[in-house]
Amino acid sequence: MQDLNIALIGGGFMGKAHSLAYAALPMYFWPAPARPVRKVLVDVTEELAATAADRYGWERHATSWQDVVNDPDIDVVDIATPNHLHADIAIAAAEAGKHIICEKPLAPNAGDAKRMLDAVERAGVVSAVAFNYRRTPAVALAKKYIDEGAIGTILNFRGTYLQDWSADPDSPLSWRFQKKIAGSGAVGDIGSHVVDLARYLVGEIAEVNSVVSTFIHERPLQASGFDALGAATKSDGPRGAVDVDDEAMTLVKFRDGAVGSIEATRNAWGRNNFITFEIHGTEGSIFFNYENRDELQVAFKNDPADRRGFRTVYTGPNTPYGEHLWPIPALGIGYGETKIIEAYEFVKAIAEGGSVRPDFADGYQTALVDEAILESGQIGQWVQVPLHERAGG
Amino acid sequence: MQDLNIALIGGGFMGKAHSLAYAALPMYFWPAPARPVRKVLVDVTEELAATAADRYGWERHATSWQDVVNDPDIDVVDIATPNHLHADIAIAAAEAGKHIICEKPLAPNAGDAKRMLDAVERAGVVSAVAFNYRRTPAVALAKKYIDEGAIGTILNFRGTYLQDWSADPDSPLSWRFQKKIAGSGAVGDIGSHVVDLARYLVGEIAEVNSVVSTFIHERPLQASGFDALGAATKSDGPRGAVDVDDEAMTLVKFRDGAVGSIEATRNAWGRNNFITFEIHGTEGSIFFNYENRDELQVAFKNDPADRRGFRTVYTGPNTPYGEHLWPIPALGIGYGETKIIEAYEFVKAIAEGGSVRPDFADGYQTALVDEAILESGQIGQWVQVPLHERAGG
Amino acid sequence: MQDLNIALIGGGFMGKAHSLAYAALPMYFWPAPARPVRKVLVDVTEELAATAADRYGWERHATSWQDVVNDPDIDVVDIATPNHLHADIAIAAAEAGKHIICEKPLAPNAGDAKRMLDAVERAGVVSAVAFNYRRTPAVALAKKYIDEGAIGTILNFRGTYLQDWSADPDSPLSWRFQKKIAGSGAVGDIGSHVVDLARYLVGEIAEVNSVVSTFIHERPLQASGFDALGAATKSDGPRGAVDVDDEAMTLVKFRDGAVGSIEATRNAWGRNNFITFEIHGTEGSIFFNYENRDELQVAFKNDPADRRGFRTVYTGPNTPYGEHLWPIPALGIGYGETKIIEAYEFVKAIAEGGSVRPDFADGYQTALVDEAILESGQIGQWVQVPLHERAGG
Amino acid sequence: MQDLNIALIGGGFMGKAHSLAYAALPMYFWPAPARPVRKVLVDVTEELAATAADRYGWERHATSWQDVVNDPDIDVVDIATPNHLHADIAIAAAEAGKHIICEKPLAPNAGDAKRMLDAVERAGVVSAVAFNYRRTPAVALAKKYIDEGAIGTILNFRGTYLQDWSADPDSPLSWRFQKKIAGSGAVGDIGSHVVDLARYLVGEIAEVNSVVSTFIHERPLQASGFDALGAATKSDGPRGAVDVDDEAMTLVKFRDGAVGSIEATRNAWGRNNFITFEIHGTEGSIFFNYENRDELQVAFKNDPADRRGFRTVYTGPNTPYGEHLWPIPALGIGYGETKIIEAYEFVKAIAEGGSVRPDFADGYQTALVDEAILESGQIGQWVQVPLHERAGG
Repeated sequence: MQDLNIALIGGGFMGKAHSLAYAALPMYFWPAPARPVRKVLVDVTEELAATAADRYGWERHATSWQDVVNDPDIDVVDIATPNHLHADIAIAAAEAGKHIICEKPLAPNAGDAKRMLDAVERAGVVSAVAFNYRRTPAVALAKKYIDEGAIGTILNFRGTYLQDWSADPDSPLSWRFQKKIAGSGAVGDIGSHVVDLARYLVGEIAEVNSVVSTFIHERPLQASGFDALGAATKSDGPRGAVDVDDEAMTLVKFRDGAVGSIEATRNAWGRNNFITFEIHGTEGSIFFNYENRDELQVAFKNDPADRRGFRTVYTGPNTPYGEHLWPIPALGIGYGETKIIEAYEFVKAIAEGGSVRPDFADGYQTALVDEAILESGQIGQWVQVPLHERAGG
Repeated sequence: MQDLNIALIGGGFMGKAHSLAYAALPMYFWPAPARPVRKVLVDVTEELAATAADRYGWERHATSWQDVVNDPDIDVVDIATPNHLHADIAIAAAEAGKHIICEKPLAPNAGDAKRMLDAVERAGVVSAVAFNYRRTPAVALAKKYIDEGAIGTILNFRGTYLQDWSADPDSPLSWRFQKKIAGSGAVGDIGSHVVDLARYLVGEIAEVNSVVSTFIHERPLQASGFDALGAATKSDGPRGAVDVDDEAMTLVKFRDGAVGSIEATRNAWGRNNFITFEIHGTEGSIFFNYENRDELQVAFKNDPADRRGFRTVYTGPNTPYGEHLWPIPALGIGYGETKIIEAYEFVKAIAEGGSVRPDFADGYQTALVDEAILESGQIGQWVQVPLHERAGG
Repeated sequence: MQDLNIALIGGGFMGKAHSLAYAALPMYFWPAPARPVRKVLVDVTEELAATAADRYGWERHATSWQDVVNDPDIDVVDIATPNHLHADIAIAAAEAGKHIICEKPLAPNAGDAKRMLDAVERAGVVSAVAFNYRRTPAVALAKKYIDEGAIGTILNFRGTYLQDWSADPDSPLSWRFQKKIAGSGAVGDIGSHVVDLARYLVGEIAEVNSVVSTFIHERPLQASGFDALGAATKSDGPRGAVDVDDEAMTLVKFRDGAVGSIEATRNAWGRNNFITFEIHGTEGSIFFNYENRDELQVAFKNDPADRRGFRTVYTGPNTPYGEHLWPIPALGIGYGETKIIEAYEFVKAIAEGGSVRPDFADGYQTALVDEAILESGQIGQWVQVPLHERAGG
Repeated sequence: MQDLNIALIGGGFMGKAHSLAYAALPMYFWPAPARPVRKVLVDVTEELAATAADRYGWERHATSWQDVVNDPDIDVVDIATPNHLHADIAIAAAEAGKHIICEKPLAPNAGDAKRMLDAVERAGVVSAVAFNYRRTPAVALAKKYIDEGAIGTILNFRGTYLQDWSADPDSPLSWRFQKKIAGSGAVGDIGSHVVDLARYLVGEIAEVNSVVSTFIHERPLQASGFDALGAATKSDGPRGAVDVDDEAMTLVKFRDGAVGSIEATRNAWGRNNFITFEIHGTEGSIFFNYENRDELQVAFKNDPADRRGFRTVYTGPNTPYGEHLWPIPALGIGYGETKIIEAYEFVKAIAEGGSVRPDFADGYQTALVDEAILESGQIGQWVQVPLHERAGG
């Protein structure tokens, strides 16, 4: 089995998730298409980098991503930094001929995303963007049902990503609330996941019409830019301005005629990681809620009239990826598994000389949708989403 | 206890519900503000009227609503006909000085609704429009929480009414699919309930932006205009055109700054009477699903961090209307109870010489919202909703 | 349509439910097998009786049940008193040739129940016992599935009835906590419903083995014996002894080989009217929770491996009794509907000269099971349940 | 950080889970109490061992557990074999001075479990038994609530473990259906988890009374003894006898006065890994269902009357272990996390020179309960459970 030498840029929460994925990949998928080797972890200070490398099982650490992406020993660059660094790192990595997986959103804006896409296309490397939620086995099962025609022609889609970890105005002003780093707020951070699910399950989005809001206008400054998420302690110190959205509600029209809605909010008390979709088709319906992610609900028109209703199907050995996961349904899919499958699909593409979805073209297309959502929110009108034609069709 | 003589126009499914409500009102609310007497039931043929009167316990029957609304023995006219007849009956009843309760939507269009409103205001009679779902005890509890400030300032609202009884293109072309009778499709029939809930719980809607669709363009003709709903048998006979919408997805902006979405669809396989709302406020959230109508879910920001989450509160003796319903929670609220409470509030207003909400002014305002939804669906832009200033403020 | 003159003994909460049922019966079931006429309501004082008769729509009232049951104008005696009065009233009514419906449990003990059964058999009248929960449409659907073999041979059954309206030791010492009136506590009051469901769905119970507990040994005295249930106000006045159980957990063996468990408790904080059953068969499983009573969940072994799971079926026009209820599923079944269907089945049996289940033989058999549960709780051993052979097989 | 050299005996499904746990431990818990080093993996053939070692990231492999447990380089022996091998391996490992973690049930019978316990006590090594479900963060939160008195004095407990992976009589006769290897069927395999949860949350069990059944008496022979679980393909080949139970329903009395029930069945179509418990206390109730394992439901008596009901608390940073898991609730706890926490607690005990629960004394006590359940099932009477007094109190 071929080794694949990985460099991980960013040792925060996502660094943990990616490290777990590389360590676990062959345990789950065997024989693995290649063996990811945790070669080098990069973070902003020597101490951070050393500690993260030690903790997450990397052979060495570094503080210069520039050196690392040019290291001939490295095959893959994994970008898990705040958004504003994605483009520079990815373009340099592509120019150095590295395969690249990048956390979502691909970039703070569509322009950067396009430059990243151009770079990987020029370099001919494998690219991937980490919209991991489509890797949830139950979401893959939804995709299978749709592809099999089990719910017929899709009429509509409504997706949500609701959270409350920052619903408190006293939670800190991390980089996720700063436009110059994050690009946008709820739209790029969590809405982009829903856009990805919509594109994955239904198809390309033609137009959007949105209301984009910022309900919390300032938050306590925090000492560092680390990604604290929900673990953050509250503060009553000095405050800084939030210059990104914290909520967006969007109508969408898909190119194939389906319609839908997408909602992302950080102000939903009681909702934690509430990623849901409900899809109605001419032959049935699908409902998914990531908070109960082992389940997919599906209703079929053609069930007998006295036995018709949503079925709660637990994913397991008989559903996508199941033979590689746990031997019985409901034994328990966690966040880790979504990243392990994500890593597997990426590594497989490299090993087989192919490609993977979602790639940078998907990341760019999603960025175009996000940008249209933000623009629509500003001008209060339907905004058409440009369609990037994928290279090679 | 004062008797209140009722005339019911329309002996279909709604006639049953209203008859039950009048019979049960004193059983639930005692002492009753007045005793509704089921005097006369009107339907289109002698046979229909006679049968319905016998079945639903009315003293006599008739086929001329014109005669009945002018009968000096009658105090109240209850309109449970298809939508296109509401205006004529209501205006005549108002002119005859009768108090009026009218099924929703108030009229097929806002113009008719306005004429009806004008008539009852001129006549000084009590008017009510039968948006019964706000009478669900759990919805009344949501209102109480909001009024008490339990969830703080409302940030957003999303409401749905999803059904599937007509999702099959082979279900018949009842009057609900004909514009000249119904006025609109999903928008007026079920969307209006969600608009009513939004107005009740959050406040007036300032602007709407919608996608209005018709996915099923023709249906089998049926012999009569009766209200078959889900009980209808399928047919493969000749078909007629559907000229109303069967689905609408709408963004809304409330006058007080909250935003939201409203969705109504008849194409949701697996959803039966899926009336839901989720409201996020600065201090908490509320979720309701009518399919599990004994429950209200509420999350409070200020719960201890390790004990925070949605509570499932079953309505009962300690929640609104509870002392009049059943002695313990979850004994079981059904559709009937929503109509019994509705009748009670209406009868009480008459007995006390007051007024009730939702009244024809509410029905008219909701019709304005519906009309704005339909217009927005046509022109693809935000449409402002005129605000009718209530007489007397 | 034939009139059926009813005398109702007892004007409390159950009186309300039964009055509603008689009023609504023809509205739901049309043409009705007979028209129940609310002739006379009996309660212990003139004032109580007069008020209840007025409230619940009875032609007249009385305070002597003895007179009423011998009134030749009366066809049916409906017993909704505390348990200790059931036998005397029922036996007198039977001797007077009246058809009888009696609230559950049939009697405080099996001996009384047997005397009641003997009386109705001697008299040849129709008898019914008000185990209304088997009338829930979703329960009737479960029965239909089982009868059709949809879940194969039943392996096991577990049923619960959990409540919390009296979980507080400060809730009053109503008659339900006094052995001389109630006979037993949770066992007879709520456990008997579960026994009835078990017998209805699975079959006769051969043996039981139970733990019967009383956790709350005294409660505040209350002024009267009225049935306060959850509406009761708490008190810190003088207390009296509780001499009945408040919880029973029981293993059961059915005669046909299935096994199971039955649990009844009044101490389940957060459970309101939590009547559930889960049944596993060789071909599938069924789950029901009355708190969400419009739903039945069913899983089928033979569903495709990637589409197998519990289906949530909402009862409606396509399921038992559905055409008589509301025209679409989830419009809303409440407690009222269970009593309306109960009344219908009883009235139909009278009109057709037949019989109905559950009748007094069922009530007696259930009392035998209850008594075995209590005995087993005392002696700590399996106790065989005598099987009463139904007259005429 | 100290290295801890692990030897893993058994490379099946559990081998995967344990390997993941060791790899991930420092990623989650940092600084780790010690660093588990995956030294050697043992399986029955050279090929199986080599493949598993390669797949799961172990430095080397072996086929003789005897050699390995005596290898001075090894600090810890991890036993993940079929049950009948546990005792020999564990006793040898203890005699060699190794710390031991053993999969559940500790042994096929209580006698073997006692010998294992004696061995580790004699040797003074740390022992652990892998009842991982008590490591679910939501279960740890339940324990915290109980310890804080949040639900008051516990009145009762009912726990279930329902599965269907072997509900089909055509699923193969793996070692789990053979008494000589497994010791018992559902009782030891899954019921033991519920016993462990009952002991963890409520306390020691004094007496049991059970019905133990075998509904499927023969199954197709399979080629090997591998642990196929749900992934197994069905077969119509020759069949062998099942000589263990597949279902047990048990009443329990706890030493402190609480009562309860425990059910384990392999015949529950539609239930996958349905580990649930519901606990009622004098001040509140707790409900847990592992199939939705990120959630714990809790109801408090003292909530305001109009805001009382089960809260759905998602575990996360503010609940036990949360700071080591994922940064927001509902990001997703899977089976892996239960094993990672399990490994952490074990490794911490070794590093700190302490002990861990559940240890072999717990495993033995649980085996005593299991044995009492089986005996009660045979003799049809209450059976007292001997209480093993823990060494040192």
